[in-house]
Amino acid sequence: MNKPIITMTTDFGPSPFPGLMKGVMLGICPEASLVDLSHAVPAQDVREGALVIEQALDVFPPGTVHLGVVDPGVGTSRLPIAVAALGMFFVGPDNGLFTPAILADPQARVYELTEASLFRQPVCATFHGRDVFSPVAAHLARGLDPTELGPLVEDPVLLTWPQPKEEGGVLLGSVLSADSFGNLDTNLPRSMVEKFLAGRRAEVRLGTMRVIGIQRAYGQASNSQPLALYNSMDRLELAINRGNLYARVAPDRGSAFGLAVEVRPLD
Amino acid sequence: MNKPIITMTTDFGPSPFPGLMKGVMLGICPEASLVDLSHAVPAQDVREGALVIEQALDVFPPGTVHLGVVDPGVGTSRLPIAVAALGMFFVGPDNGLFTPAILADPQARVYELTEASLFRQPVCATFHGRDVFSPVAAHLARGLDPTELGPLVEDPVLLTWPQPKEEGGVLLGSVLSADSFGNLDTNLPRSMVEKFLAGRRAEVRLGTMRVIGIQRAYGQASNSQPLALYNSMDRLELAINRGNLYARVAPDRGSAFGLAVEVRPLD
Amino acid sequence: MNKPIITMTTDFGPSPFPGLMKGVMLGICPEASLVDLSHAVPAQDVREGALVIEQALDVFPPGTVHLGVVDPGVGTSRLPIAVAALGMFFVGPDNGLFTPAILADPQARVYELTEASLFRQPVCATFHGRDVFSPVAAHLARGLDPTELGPLVEDPVLLTWPQPKEEGGVLLGSVLSADSFGNLDTNLPRSMVEKFLAGRRAEVRLGTMRVIGIQRAYGQASNSQPLALYNSMDRLELAINRGNLYARVAPDRGSAFGLAVEVRPLD
Repeated sequence: MNKPIITMTTDFGPSPFPGLMKGVMLGICPEASLVDLSHAVPAQDVREGALVIEQALDVFPPGTVHLGVVDPGVGTSRLPIAVAALGMFFVGPDNGLFTPAILADPQARVYELTEASLFRQPVCATFHGRDVFSPVAAHLARGLDPTELGPLVEDPVLLTWPQPKEEGGVLLGSVLSADSFGNLDTNLPRSMVEKFLAGRRAEVRLGTMRVIGIQRAYGQASNSQPLALYNSMDRLELAINRGNLYARVAPDRGSAFGLAVEVRPLD
Repeated sequence: MNKPIITMTTDFGPSPFPGLMKGVMLGICPEASLVDLSHAVPAQDVREGALVIEQALDVFPPGTVHLGVVDPGVGTSRLPIAVAALGMFFVGPDNGLFTPAILADPQARVYELTEASLFRQPVCATFHGRDVFSPVAAHLARGLDPTELGPLVEDPVLLTWPQPKEEGGVLLGSVLSADSFGNLDTNLPRSMVEKFLAGRRAEVRLGTMRVIGIQRAYGQASNSQPLALYNSMDRLELAINRGNLYARVAPDRGSAFGLAVEVRPLD
Repeated sequence: MNKPIITMTTDFGPSPFPGLMKGVMLGICPEASLVDLSHAVPAQDVREGALVIEQALDVFPPGTVHLGVVDPGVGTSRLPIAVAALGMFFVGPDNGLFTPAILADPQARVYELTEASLFRQPVCATFHGRDVFSPVAAHLARGLDPTELGPLVEDPVLLTWPQPKEEGGVLLGSVLSADSFGNLDTNLPRSMVEKFLAGRRAEVRLGTMRVIGIQRAYGQASNSQPLALYNSMDRLELAINRGNLYARVAPDRGSAFGLAVEVRPLD
């Protein structure tokens, strides 16, 4: 068996909670490599958590266990689940956090976590991350068959995202999130944009900002100038070379999610 | 022997210092799993550091070494120590950082670190974390007997905490700290509160805020409504469902420590 | 072979990017210990990144691979490189990030990364950290000979630092950076200061602030009083005991770099 890997994505911020979860996991699976994917998901922002985990789907080796704890419903009736999809596992609450993995794999299986003998006892109703999800993730990392976790869940909660559309010769998309540099990721895949443009140059609009053309790298724009390019998820991104676009266009908005983006052909 | 685990709790913030300490430890004990418990302890706040390490006491496996560096007196006459307690080790300054572990184990032994051959030389007077505590932690993780570290310390520095008391039919407690969600941990253990209430419903007061009843989970209050519940340390906690209570009640206070909490029975 | 160690220094902040890079590295070198040195380098601040990596040079064991990604020119003509120096490896952009290592070792060798079969394909032009530098770092950690990476680079980019000088009986230096406590690291090595003073007491000036003498530890000044001492890099440092000097002297400056420091003898 490969050396087990467990990643963690939470909204715990700079707190001891991720470290405590690692203590539980190392007690069960001492050989695991534990990787912090993000603990900076905004509090209770399940959609942003899902966008973080999505980035890991084609990066980590098969067998990786992805633990996700963005869980405003902890201790209520929302189900604790594990997902087997894409040759990996996902453990956390049934609130849509694993939507990209479930949608990406038609063979995805979702299991309710009912096998309480696997949990840390007594289970604290406010910290399933420590007492339910961490031990289950560690058991999966050690090779536990997911069918031993509990019954199948037929209708897991799935998030919906705004979908791009073409209207009046314009490709209409929207911003999904801002990264730590203030670069704005959109819901426009490269394949869709390139098909729409069919070789024509693009004008990309965000609010009153307009950029011409789609660049290859940040450094192809002058300093402090906005630009468009394809990012590491192969989606259209808007950015400012050596600057923070999010801070410029949406300083008081709280989130970049949903900002409208337009792509127009330049004839 | 188990795979060694070393945890780290410091007030170093987003700095290279924790990574440098890991370099020293991996040079001595390459097999160690290194776990960041917190590097976000407020600068020089020994009490907050002690509250972080307390949370790890019943979570990590036996043999774990807990390295704690919140050390305003570095390089002065305060002693460098290692504590053997609860089947684990604690390494850092003798300033009260390990009070919960020492008080929890009547068999606790405290050693002064005098065996300079274990240190990284030359020892820098401003960074014992790198030159004294990290190498000692790594040697303990490798199995060094703590009696080889130096002489016993008979009267280690111990912090004192505000103690709850019952007065005029009211249970009087106080806040210990706020977590990253703004939830307020108190010094009131569940066992004490339940014994006091003897089955009666509770009214819990914090300043002008009053909540009725003690809930099981955050989601049992409406959004933005305050509530009381028992937290992952099994102590009474005050919180706001999907909100930040600390930001609401004490925005300019600098710390939540010491805020008065009252529990009254509702007849 | 020793257990491989890879450190990471980036300006990625609280983002999933470091975790994604770890996924790539663990896929290639599952046994690696991955150490975060810093992800809090200010965005695009190559000099600050170089000062972080410099601190690791005499701390990590031989064979360690230091991955550095502060890379405003990603995807442009700047070269991707690996440096073999001081018995360790350094992987990242050719923009001066590894200047201290290259200058410290006359035998340093710099290789351009041209062996595309080592990269994650397709290489994303905005994230060489994930697709170029991480896989190369992991292959070096596994024992790849650096001569297999590509041709030698004869004139790597090197940063220049302000150099101290003696003028009119005064030793003139400058601040390099502020740490997370607000302590100010200078470009004045202890050996130079001690030779200049030749046993005389020092007066150290920073703006209008003057301190007398060079202390051994922070605690030798009264609380809130400024002091000078030698830090963990064995350079002169200015600090405030239990306070934040950077916040006091340069709150609106954006960076502490370049602040003038004077050392004068007291006769």
